[in-house]
Amino acid sequence: MALDQKIADRLRRNPDGLVPAIVQQHDTGEVLMLAWMDDEALHRTLTTGRATYWSRSRGEYWVKGDTSGHVQWVRHVALDCDGDTVLLKVDQVGAACHTGDRTCFDADVLDAHVAGADGA
Amino acid sequence: MALDQKIADRLRRNPDGLVPAIVQQHDTGEVLMLAWMDDEALHRTLTTGRATYWSRSRGEYWVKGDTSGHVQWVRHVALDCDGDTVLLKVDQVGAACHTGDRTCFDADVLDAHVAGADGA
Repeated sequence: MALDQKIADRLRRNPDGLVPAIVQQHDTGEVLMLAWMDDEALHRTLTTGRATYWSRSRGEYWVKGDTSGHVQWVRHVALDCDGDTVLLKVDQVGAACHTGDRTCFDADVLDAHVAGADGA
Repeated sequence: MALDQKIADRLRRNPDGLVPAIVQQHDTGEVLMLAWMDDEALHRTLTTGRATYWSRSRGEYWVKGDTSGHVQWVRHVALDCDGDTVLLKVDQVGAACHTGDRTCFDADVLDAHVAGADGA
């Protein structure tokens, strides 16, 4: 079995055949990480209930949690308006980040000028 | 002025010199869209209070809301653990998506098999 043809027809992949997947904790809304999927990784994610990516560094499919135990149970999957990004809502077991942090965005907050519509 | 050198040193860009930016509504946690930044777009985002991207289709900087009025006021900016993704929390005015939807992920929800740790 392969990815449903109607979904495959809507996907817009980068030159490596991949789309970015934004991974979000389904109930708290935390953005956990960004990973990459090809058609097969998306197919497995949709059909197995386990978030599955293409590891660019290792060059292989990566079922999140198979090594670490930090499984991502799939709750909701959507494509964006032009089919070039996946939003994946999951139930994350333990830490999403390989550093042990809950999310990959916890450790490196940048100083930003914060302005508002009131000009503050 | 250019992007702070210590930040630039941590960025890991794709072959086009870009990193993906996940854009999230700061209070509700909604993931609004994904866009792309080069060093200059990140610098402008950090220093002006307005979310600023590199438009790959138009080949120019894109200050979100300049045309549509759907401004994104910057609230929080972070890099991920390996410096190849930005998480941008904003206060979104109106619709984030050019289709008029609140987010770019509202219209194309995929059927997914949902399983849980209990095997359900």
